[in-house]
Amino acid sequence: MSTPYFEHLRRDLDFILYPVMGIERLCERDAFSSHSRETFDAMIDAGLRLAAEHFEPHAALADREEPRWDGERVILPEAVGIALEAFRDGGFVAAAFPEAVGGLGLPYAVTQAMMATFYGANPSTAAYPLLTAAAANLLRAFGTEDQQRRFMQPMLEGRFFGTMCLSEPQAGSGLADVRTVAHPQPDGSYHLVGDKMWISGGEHDLSETIVHLVLARLPDAPPGVKGISLFIVPKHHVDQAGALGERNGVLLTGLNHKMGYRGTVNTALAFGSEAPAVGEMVGAPHQGLHCMFHMMNEARVGVGLGATMLGYAGYRHSLQYARERHQGRHPDQRDPSQPPVPIIEHADVRRMLLSQRVYAEGGLALAIYCARLIDEMATATGDEERQRTDDLLQILTPIAKAWPSKYGPRANDLAIQILGGYGYTRDFPVERLYRDNRLNPIHEGTNGIQALDLLGRKVTMHQGRAFQALLHEIRRSMDRHAEASSDHEELTKGLSEALGLVTETTMLLGGAAMQGKVRLFLANAGAYLDMLGHVVIAWMWLEQAATATRLLSTMSDLDETFLRGKVTAARFFFRYELPKIRVWAELLKRLDDTTLELDTHEL
Amino acid sequence: MSTPYFEHLRRDLDFILYPVMGIERLCERDAFSSHSRETFDAMIDAGLRLAAEHFEPHAALADREEPRWDGERVILPEAVGIALEAFRDGGFVAAAFPEAVGGLGLPYAVTQAMMATFYGANPSTAAYPLLTAAAANLLRAFGTEDQQRRFMQPMLEGRFFGTMCLSEPQAGSGLADVRTVAHPQPDGSYHLVGDKMWISGGEHDLSETIVHLVLARLPDAPPGVKGISLFIVPKHHVDQAGALGERNGVLLTGLNHKMGYRGTVNTALAFGSEAPAVGEMVGAPHQGLHCMFHMMNEARVGVGLGATMLGYAGYRHSLQYARERHQGRHPDQRDPSQPPVPIIEHADVRRMLLSQRVYAEGGLALAIYCARLIDEMATATGDEERQRTDDLLQILTPIAKAWPSKYGPRANDLAIQILGGYGYTRDFPVERLYRDNRLNPIHEGTNGIQALDLLGRKVTMHQGRAFQALLHEIRRSMDRHAEASSDHEELTKGLSEALGLVTETTMLLGGAAMQGKVRLFLANAGAYLDMLGHVVIAWMWLEQAATATRLLSTMSDLDETFLRGKVTAARFFFRYELPKIRVWAELLKRLDDTTLELDTHEL
Repeated sequence: MSTPYFEHLRRDLDFILYPVMGIERLCERDAFSSHSRETFDAMIDAGLRLAAEHFEPHAALADREEPRWDGERVILPEAVGIALEAFRDGGFVAAAFPEAVGGLGLPYAVTQAMMATFYGANPSTAAYPLLTAAAANLLRAFGTEDQQRRFMQPMLEGRFFGTMCLSEPQAGSGLADVRTVAHPQPDGSYHLVGDKMWISGGEHDLSETIVHLVLARLPDAPPGVKGISLFIVPKHHVDQAGALGERNGVLLTGLNHKMGYRGTVNTALAFGSEAPAVGEMVGAPHQGLHCMFHMMNEARVGVGLGATMLGYAGYRHSLQYARERHQGRHPDQRDPSQPPVPIIEHADVRRMLLSQRVYAEGGLALAIYCARLIDEMATATGDEERQRTDDLLQILTPIAKAWPSKYGPRANDLAIQILGGYGYTRDFPVERLYRDNRLNPIHEGTNGIQALDLLGRKVTMHQGRAFQALLHEIRRSMDRHAEASSDHEELTKGLSEALGLVTETTMLLGGAAMQGKVRLFLANAGAYLDMLGHVVIAWMWLEQAATATRLLSTMSDLDETFLRGKVTAARFFFRYELPKIRVWAELLKRLDDTTLELDTHEL
Repeated sequence: MSTPYFEHLRRDLDFILYPVMGIERLCERDAFSSHSRETFDAMIDAGLRLAAEHFEPHAALADREEPRWDGERVILPEAVGIALEAFRDGGFVAAAFPEAVGGLGLPYAVTQAMMATFYGANPSTAAYPLLTAAAANLLRAFGTEDQQRRFMQPMLEGRFFGTMCLSEPQAGSGLADVRTVAHPQPDGSYHLVGDKMWISGGEHDLSETIVHLVLARLPDAPPGVKGISLFIVPKHHVDQAGALGERNGVLLTGLNHKMGYRGTVNTALAFGSEAPAVGEMVGAPHQGLHCMFHMMNEARVGVGLGATMLGYAGYRHSLQYARERHQGRHPDQRDPSQPPVPIIEHADVRRMLLSQRVYAEGGLALAIYCARLIDEMATATGDEERQRTDDLLQILTPIAKAWPSKYGPRANDLAIQILGGYGYTRDFPVERLYRDNRLNPIHEGTNGIQALDLLGRKVTMHQGRAFQALLHEIRRSMDRHAEASSDHEELTKGLSEALGLVTETTMLLGGAAMQGKVRLFLANAGAYLDMLGHVVIAWMWLEQAATATRLLSTMSDLDETFLRGKVTAARFFFRYELPKIRVWAELLKRLDDTTLELDTHEL
């Protein structure tokens, strides 16, 4: 990746943040009143600089020199530590936290835009502070003052790093079956016993210590998710003054060797297997999953943004290659004495570029939209606004996680194809992006789980209130743009038809649910997410196209060709992608039960 | 992979080879009259044993310990050489060659079924003899007696290995721009000068020497593909008696480090950069590409089969995992005190399994069908049969290559998803299968090239004769099955509608071509291949379902559950996959020109 990459990213972020999403209007709210577009831009520029200088340059190295255990410690390339030190020194960890706790008090939407620069440049190294900020955020919401002082504060300063210890070897998607037990001690502490799996950042020397946030059961807890509590278990004991003591009983039992995302050390940890693993409870007993769910929207939107940015990085890289690489001739100009044309001239290469673009920039717009909802939720002034915002965020979160993590990897696949043999080698970054991105449909709730969450919970909750709020929001947007200009007729017509199909399909499915046919109702939840996801992304493209058209007819310092490109990309999405929803809708409308009726012995 | 894997594969091969494709009827032809189902089965069983004993066990190792250059030679894991020795000693290299040259005279369809066992077990190691057989086959068709004696014969004995040197750093897909020059020498030999790229098996010590088949231009050759000739350039000089001499001027300039298929050493070679690279011409001047095209159908069908088998291996692995892994509960049975269910109980996991199955076994049927056409071509007794067979093979080849190499990787993606976090680690084979399979859409003509070949050449050639032959063949098959049983109504109805759509779309596209709008005609060739590919695979599933139904109503030693599974899988394909063709047909029918009209500065 090169300087032009970061320039293009800056332009894309600018366009989506301000003219499309109006993020600067957040400054009208008390919580962000000390900010302005200037402070937002300063943060994003600082992110871009740091990502270009310290993150992108070692992305390939961190992939090649995977973390290893030398018997005493986890060895990572030196560049990882240097980058994270620069990240910490720049005050990035706490950027989204209030000024009262030493943060910058920036809107989440702005910090997400800032993080987007790191996700595209080097997601593996960015994962450490990301996890730390997420853990700190949990402690801000549920920790005691004392816990915040001893654990959250050093995390925000970048001195301690954090982890999330949810999964166990036998329980990844199924957290109801978490087995780790926290035994209460006379002094009010707990001794945790159990095995945790897939713990990113579970062991390293990048920070003074590591703060593990661990899901476990009290000995008398009820079964299932209602019996899970949350605990702080630090790698080293931390005394009342916040000073580090001896190592706690958290043992590294293995490093996981992954296909991608290799720079992020991923571990299996044993709690209390040799020495006691002393912890303290966060929040109330049995409320552990509730606490975790508090963070879920942000975490899931963040995963979607990461998947989008890997797709975006592949798009920019393959675009540059397609402009420079000469090969083949037009089908009506086969004269071999003429020089070959740049491959961007070939229709199929253009299709592959436009597909990548609509996936990546569509997902980026959705991520920023959801991040704005998070900011609006946090600063809502009335119940009505809070409810509407919460409804939208609830129903959009599974889409914002799953859609980009399905189509981001598809984009990366196309980037490889454009580079051909070169794309299949480790000399170019596109194969690494492809490997890295394959993680995203798996973690933070698999895409299958997201689909069940969307259709089984979010669409039906409050008698479909969130679903109606989403349709209302999309229709309002269509009306506004139709009023402003007649240029979007193709798009508004397409989206209007799509909404009709979605409504019809949802009603029909709802009928099955009301009859108690729960398995039939959910049998094709994945197709439902695909369908609604494509409609939401179509909406995001209408927003971008309408904004570009508006700017083209007024004075704007944005480049005209760039703006026209947004309109072209939107049309491509409506012509090549949106029609796919008919296939999904058909499958859903006939309540296809092929998978339910399957005799699995036949496989 | 375990013994059950090979048992399942044996059963699937049996079903497709005999009841579905009637391969045993090839023995009625003179060329195969010394064979019987028994000799076919003996070959396939020998392949299965060898694949299980010597290929599968080192697949992960060969991926991990990538070939490296120590300054003097290419180092490969010892197991690769041992496996290839066993392969050679078993007489596998020459299995498809006539008995006259020391082969077994087996039908191509049978040797493909035999190779299928290696592709699924360890495609990287299987690539060496595969390339060798392909090169030997070229020499059998175009080499002089002398060349056959000195080069082909030792290749068939497995003493020499072969390569295909087509691509150059600036010319991968665009062979018209090959630059390597062959300078004629007074003694009738040629000195080749130029750089070749992506040469699999280009340097190693696995064989006594390496026979490079090289595309190059004579100094006075016309530009483009009509000026390319074919040369033998061995790694060592080979004298008239066939004895090896000093090294020839073929220099290893680099190893390519790939994402997958790592066990196959892939090289950049310089010809004549230090010492002269002495070669001899194969066939007539300027006929090099013609010679290569002679092999193209077989090579492309072989790539498709390889992609299919990687998909098949992932399917079998994730199926076993889905039966054994317990996690989650049914959506209408959330009681956490009940044990979690095997994940094969979940509808979405079943969808992912059935999708993998229809991709893999659909592709396998098509590969065997095409291989049978190759046998029928080679043994055709009349012009009419030869023409019909050639037409079918011509039009099916781009589909047989591109379709499985698109949907095979999709299958591997689903296998990873079923294994979740475990699937993303190198402790399970599914991530390696995913990486290996990503090569297949790229090599042996990218899938974009296949799409242009299909629509721009095969569909239109001889006034659509091959296209009509294909439709005729599918209709004949439908009629036959409709007559035999009324059980296939859903399938025949679906396929009939699909054929109508394909015909309509093809006529409309043909109209654009006749008006000379060549770019518009070909703008969405990829969607055309997707559409026709899905229809052909639907046909393959009808064949399998109808055969299974027939066997279910008669005495058969095939397991009933297995046969019912074929019917279930066919229905799944018709319900979940075939409807997608409507979206592609729509795009094609409106002659969408979005990509042609694109101003690429907008990207």
